[in-house]
Amino acid sequence: MSRLTAIYRIRSDARAIDARARSIAVEQSVEMPVDAIDDPAVLADIVGQVEQIVDLGQDVFEVRVGLAVATTGSEPGQLLNMLYGNSSIHDDVTLWDAEFPDDLLHAFPGPNRGLDGLRHRVGAAGRAMTCSALKPQGLPPATLAGIALRLAEGGIDFIKDDHGLADQAYSPFARRVAAVQAALRKSGRKTCYLPSLSGSLDQMVAQVEQARNEGVDFVLLAPMIAGLANFHALVRAYPTMGFMTHPAMAGASRIAPPLLLGKLFRLMGSDATVFPNHGGRFGYAPETCRALAEACRRPYAGRRPSVPVPAGGMTAERIDEMLAFYGPDTMLLIGGGLLQARDRLAEAAAAFTRRVAQAGHD
Amino acid sequence: MSRLTAIYRIRSDARAIDARARSIAVEQSVEMPVDAIDDPAVLADIVGQVEQIVDLGQDVFEVRVGLAVATTGSEPGQLLNMLYGNSSIHDDVTLWDAEFPDDLLHAFPGPNRGLDGLRHRVGAAGRAMTCSALKPQGLPPATLAGIALRLAEGGIDFIKDDHGLADQAYSPFARRVAAVQAALRKSGRKTCYLPSLSGSLDQMVAQVEQARNEGVDFVLLAPMIAGLANFHALVRAYPTMGFMTHPAMAGASRIAPPLLLGKLFRLMGSDATVFPNHGGRFGYAPETCRALAEACRRPYAGRRPSVPVPAGGMTAERIDEMLAFYGPDTMLLIGGGLLQARDRLAEAAAAFTRRVAQAGHD
Repeated sequence: MSRLTAIYRIRSDARAIDARARSIAVEQSVEMPVDAIDDPAVLADIVGQVEQIVDLGQDVFEVRVGLAVATTGSEPGQLLNMLYGNSSIHDDVTLWDAEFPDDLLHAFPGPNRGLDGLRHRVGAAGRAMTCSALKPQGLPPATLAGIALRLAEGGIDFIKDDHGLADQAYSPFARRVAAVQAALRKSGRKTCYLPSLSGSLDQMVAQVEQARNEGVDFVLLAPMIAGLANFHALVRAYPTMGFMTHPAMAGASRIAPPLLLGKLFRLMGSDATVFPNHGGRFGYAPETCRALAEACRRPYAGRRPSVPVPAGGMTAERIDEMLAFYGPDTMLLIGGGLLQARDRLAEAAAAFTRRVAQAGHD
Repeated sequence: MSRLTAIYRIRSDARAIDARARSIAVEQSVEMPVDAIDDPAVLADIVGQVEQIVDLGQDVFEVRVGLAVATTGSEPGQLLNMLYGNSSIHDDVTLWDAEFPDDLLHAFPGPNRGLDGLRHRVGAAGRAMTCSALKPQGLPPATLAGIALRLAEGGIDFIKDDHGLADQAYSPFARRVAAVQAALRKSGRKTCYLPSLSGSLDQMVAQVEQARNEGVDFVLLAPMIAGLANFHALVRAYPTMGFMTHPAMAGASRIAPPLLLGKLFRLMGSDATVFPNHGGRFGYAPETCRALAEACRRPYAGRRPSVPVPAGGMTAERIDEMLAFYGPDTMLLIGGGLLQARDRLAEAAAAFTRRVAQAGHD
C-alpha cells in the first residue's frame, strides 16, 4: 500500500501531542471515529498513520503522517485536500512539507520549460534573469504597451502583468496582449511578456488561445485562485507553454512557502514562481526564502528546476545582495521600483539589466 | 466611480496604523508606489482608499478600504484577488468582511435553489433539515450504497459524500453515484444524495453530467479547492442544480468564516454551506457560528437564503442544543456520530430525524 507523507507542525503541550497527532491523521484520512470502521483494508491502508513525532521545543512538534496515495486519485485538488483540506481550519496545525512516492509523482511531470527553457527563451546564459511588471492597473492597453516598450528597450528579460491585471473593461485581456506584443516586436528584443490569466478554466483556456495567436509562449497565473487542478490541467493541455506562478491567496503563513510555492507549484508545472523576498513588503524570513529557492532548484524526481522569482518591493539597490543570496539560477523581479523612474524608465531598466549581466561575469 | 469596501482587521500599534492601512490599500489595488503614478483617473479611481479606521483595542484595528469595482472585472476569482490576494500573505491582516454595490452584485445571483428549494426537495416544511455523510473513504461503491440505504431508511433528508470521496480507484465517481442513487430509489424515500465533485472544471462538468444522468439534482464541492470562479461557472451552467459547499482549504482563520463560508459562498451560489460547529473538532466560537448562520439567512440583495450546515464531530446528544441555537432554518449534519451505531445505523438515523421532526412541532 503506497503512502505519501504529510509533515505538519503542531502547537501542543507535550502531554497532548500523541492524541493530537492521531486526531489529525484521522481528520486528514477517514474523518470519522476509527472504532466505527469495520473494513480491515480501510483500517490497514486508508486510516492515516502517525509515523513520527519530533519535539521542536517551545510547544511545537513536527508530526509525520502517512496517507494512502490511493486517496488522492492522483489529482492535484484532491491531493491538496488530503494534505490540508480540513486541517487548514485548525489554528494549531501548519502544513510544513510533504513527501511523495514515485507512483504519485508520475502524475505530475512538472514544468514544461523550466530553468533552462526560460534562460534559452531570452538568451540569458550563465546569469540571473531579470523581470519587471506592467502596472498600475487602471491604465489602458496602449499605455501599458508603452511601459512594456521602455522596459524592453532597457533589456528586461521577462515582463509580467501585475497580478491585478485580469480581464477588466479598462484593459481587456485580448486587447492588452495584442498591444504589448506589438510593442515588444517593435523593440526588436527577445523580451518575453507573460500576460495574467484569470477566471474559470474555460476563460483561462480562451485567454491562452488569444495569447498564443499573438505569439505569447509564457503566461502568469495564481494557482490558489485558479484552483490547483485547473492550473495543472492548463500545463498539461499546453505542453509548449511556460507558466509563471503568483502567490496570491496562498495564505502562506498556514502552508510553508517552500512546500506550496516551491515543491507543489513546481510539481504542478510552475516554470518560475514569484514569492515575497525577505526585507520587502512581506514577512518571509531569509531562511524561508532560501528553502523556497532550494525547493525550486534542487534535483527532485527528475523534474525540471523551476526558477525562484524573489519580488515584493525590491529595488535596484538590492540587486547585488539578491544575486549574492540566490546566485545566477534565479530571476530578479523589480516592478514599482523601476516605474518610479517615470520618464527615465528605459534607463532605469537598462541599469538593472546591466548590473545583472555584469554579475554574470564577475 | 463605483467602489466595493474591503474590511480588514489589522494588528498594529496605534502610531503605525494610519501608514499600515494606506499600505494595505495600495497593496490591494495598484501595488506600486503611488508617487510613481501620473494618470489622474488611476489616482482618483483605482488606488485603494482608506475610508475608516476603528480602534478595536488590544492593538487591533478595523480598516475599511474602498476598491474600484472595475478592478474585479465582475469575476469571482479576481474579486477574491482584489479583496485579499497579496494581503493573504501578510500575517497581520485578516479579511474580516466586504460590502458590495449593486453594480457588482448583479454579476452574482446567488443560490439556484436556496433554503426553500432544499426544504421543498425533501419535504421538510417548517423544521430543520437532517444530513449525514458517506464514510469512510476506501470503501467500494456497493458498501457506501448500503450505508446510504440505511441512512435513508432512517429518514435522513440529505446524504453527502464525505468531502474526501473524489474519483478514486476504490470508488470511482460514476460507479459510486449509480450505486447510491439505486439504493435511494430502493428506499422509496425523498432522501437527496449529494456526490462530491473534484478535479478541474472540465472534470467537474463531466461528473455533473454523469450525476444528472443518474437523477442527481444536488452536488457537493469545496470552492477553495475548485477555485471560486469554477464553482460559480458550474452554478451558472446548471441553473436547476443545487450546490452544497464544503470549507476544505478555507484556511478560515485568515478570512472571517461569516464572510467566506457565508456571504461569499452564498453570492457564488451555495445553497447550503457546511461549517465546523462550535464545541466540535474545530475552533470556531459560538459567536462566529451565529454570525456565519446570519450571513447565510439574512435578507441580502434579494438573494435566496442559503442553509447553514453546522458539522464537524456532532452527535445525537447535541441535537436539541443545536436546534435551539440555529432554529429551524438550518440543516443538522451528523456523520461519524451515526456511523458509530454500526448495525443499528438505520435506527440511529431514525432517532436523529424523529428528534428533529418533533422539534419542528414543539
